[in-house]
Amino acid sequence: MSFPVVGVVGGGQLARMMAGPAIELGITLRVLARDVADSAAQVVPDVAIGDERDLEALRQFAKGCDVLTFDHEHVPTEHVRVLESEGIAVRPGSDALVHAQDKGVMRERLSALGVPCPRWRLVPDAAVLAAFGDEIGWPVVLKTPRGGYDGKGVRLVTSPAEAADWFAGGGSLLAEERVEFTRELAVLVARSPHGQAAVYPVVETVQVDGVCREVLAPARISEEHALAAQEAALRVAEGLDVTGVFAVEMFDTPAGVLVNELAMRPHNSGHWTIEGARTSQFEQHLRAVLDLPLGDTRMTAPHAAMSNVLGGAIEQMYSGYLHCMAHDPGVRIHMYGKQVRPGRKVGHITTVGDDADEVRARAVHAAAFLRGDIDG
Amino acid sequence: MSFPVVGVVGGGQLARMMAGPAIELGITLRVLARDVADSAAQVVPDVAIGDERDLEALRQFAKGCDVLTFDHEHVPTEHVRVLESEGIAVRPGSDALVHAQDKGVMRERLSALGVPCPRWRLVPDAAVLAAFGDEIGWPVVLKTPRGGYDGKGVRLVTSPAEAADWFAGGGSLLAEERVEFTRELAVLVARSPHGQAAVYPVVETVQVDGVCREVLAPARISEEHALAAQEAALRVAEGLDVTGVFAVEMFDTPAGVLVNELAMRPHNSGHWTIEGARTSQFEQHLRAVLDLPLGDTRMTAPHAAMSNVLGGAIEQMYSGYLHCMAHDPGVRIHMYGKQVRPGRKVGHITTVGDDADEVRARAVHAAAFLRGDIDG
Repeated sequence: MSFPVVGVVGGGQLARMMAGPAIELGITLRVLARDVADSAAQVVPDVAIGDERDLEALRQFAKGCDVLTFDHEHVPTEHVRVLESEGIAVRPGSDALVHAQDKGVMRERLSALGVPCPRWRLVPDAAVLAAFGDEIGWPVVLKTPRGGYDGKGVRLVTSPAEAADWFAGGGSLLAEERVEFTRELAVLVARSPHGQAAVYPVVETVQVDGVCREVLAPARISEEHALAAQEAALRVAEGLDVTGVFAVEMFDTPAGVLVNELAMRPHNSGHWTIEGARTSQFEQHLRAVLDLPLGDTRMTAPHAAMSNVLGGAIEQMYSGYLHCMAHDPGVRIHMYGKQVRPGRKVGHITTVGDDADEVRARAVHAAAFLRGDIDG
Repeated sequence: MSFPVVGVVGGGQLARMMAGPAIELGITLRVLARDVADSAAQVVPDVAIGDERDLEALRQFAKGCDVLTFDHEHVPTEHVRVLESEGIAVRPGSDALVHAQDKGVMRERLSALGVPCPRWRLVPDAAVLAAFGDEIGWPVVLKTPRGGYDGKGVRLVTSPAEAADWFAGGGSLLAEERVEFTRELAVLVARSPHGQAAVYPVVETVQVDGVCREVLAPARISEEHALAAQEAALRVAEGLDVTGVFAVEMFDTPAGVLVNELAMRPHNSGHWTIEGARTSQFEQHLRAVLDLPLGDTRMTAPHAAMSNVLGGAIEQMYSGYLHCMAHDPGVRIHMYGKQVRPGRKVGHITTVGDDADEVRARAVHAAAFLRGDIDG
């Protein structure tokens, strides 16, 4: 059995962060990127340039790959089905992937599996939305079932009129109750084709304007809620027959946890695992899609914190390395090779240690310094 | 200040293992390799093919690099001096590097610095060797001052006659007393151009026929000996003006530690730091040669063990992944993309944990299984 080739569709930072573990394991990583300047295309020798919405590009790319996987979920489901029908191993497969691509399909399936969700309804028009809002109370969270990310495609509406433009686009929208949560959680699970699953400690995500800013591991929640969250994530993994690493975003409420979103790939909420867990989510993903036994998910320290580096005032963030590294020899800087634009995720910081507050403060400081918010 | 380009002369596994940390830090790694199939050339997009003994190849390669460093010490000193005279930042520099290239120069300098060494003498001919052997007792360790590695260029002789072929080659040989050691140690130090130094915990190396087989961190020695070993390594780093990561191999004896060899680059005895220390030797090396502040050298667990995977009966080691990963979810496999040949270092295994013996046994088992010594 020779060393396999893993093809990753998409050239973003998730594919980039698979490169290190692939090198370690001696596995060849091939990347389908739209542009040679894409984050992953900069660091991987084996790059194909093409559009993941083009079936022929996908077909060409798949040749010589032992398995196909994804940097993002924006590959047309019908293309994935064609590839599968032609005998290509795609992980996660189309039947699983559709749940991360279409939030309406996801809600239906999760409800059928008995996984706790916010109250929801697929609303084809303003009248149905009005009825739903009147029933559960306004405001209502309204989502476009497809294509949303980082707060895009999500809107809080106090009346159907505020969704007129979306209804004009045609198709149903997903309406959900606004959950009064105490904090937001994420659970990372890996699952392999033969059904082994491994779950990471539940983490807390700090979101600002729908964008993840910080991740704290482990989450500051009761053991009961942590177990419920892990149990729900594992049930989703098995119920949807997911393969690879995937993330379940949840709301923590006094009454229990509720599933908010799914991401069927390594996820921002799992970047802390590179230093904070014995097996990083990126190595774990490679192992899962190759149907290799999964790695140890335990933490390397009592606490870990991840802070995203968003684009700010400073264009060349290397200039901040001197301060950050001198100020804190334990800070871990990750940069994605992306051009700085305001609010864009261009890197992240991870810290580990014994004290939760200190670990968090260190990560936040370094990220803020790199983007230019503070002078040290 | 834009992200720098680090040029690594040599395409072996040390350059390969710098690739992951370079990706994380957003630093471009350029590799000068002899062949596109070289270990590092397989995984780095920016590869130049050339011979490091060819000054013109080095000059071309250095263009566009912010700093040059090395995968091995076999670059002619005179070429390094020319590059330096042309204004290229080379780290470590020629004045330091020569001590890792010429064991006679190394012994003279270390003795002048007061660093404890075995008794030694440069022997130009059989008569001087005979006098040295008669003085300190036979057998004597005889070394070719240049070009040796992994037990090559080292011989234990009981009389000058056994060195006749080496003397016929011309030039002096280095004769050293045979040290009765209790164990072999290695100390990894990083030092930056502006003089910051960071030392890792002292490790124990297990050598078989002059080849490193295992590394145990930390070494099972007294705190007094550990401090003496670290102190000696730091004195060498400063005295020789080393920049980058380097390793000092030592003998531990009841009377204290004695320096055996120097390696002026990341070293096999430091591979455990990838998982076992907060900053791996490969990231540390990049930080040191770029004159960035150095990272935390503390361990991530009480014990770490590294076992080299040497070429054995199995040619395609991927076939052993299933067993190794299922048997031990915490085992970390590193493969170098090298063709299996008997005895060749083609990868390594790292384990971390609370119990020294258990951690060691796990690493040894996985390495032995991958090479084909055992059936699980």
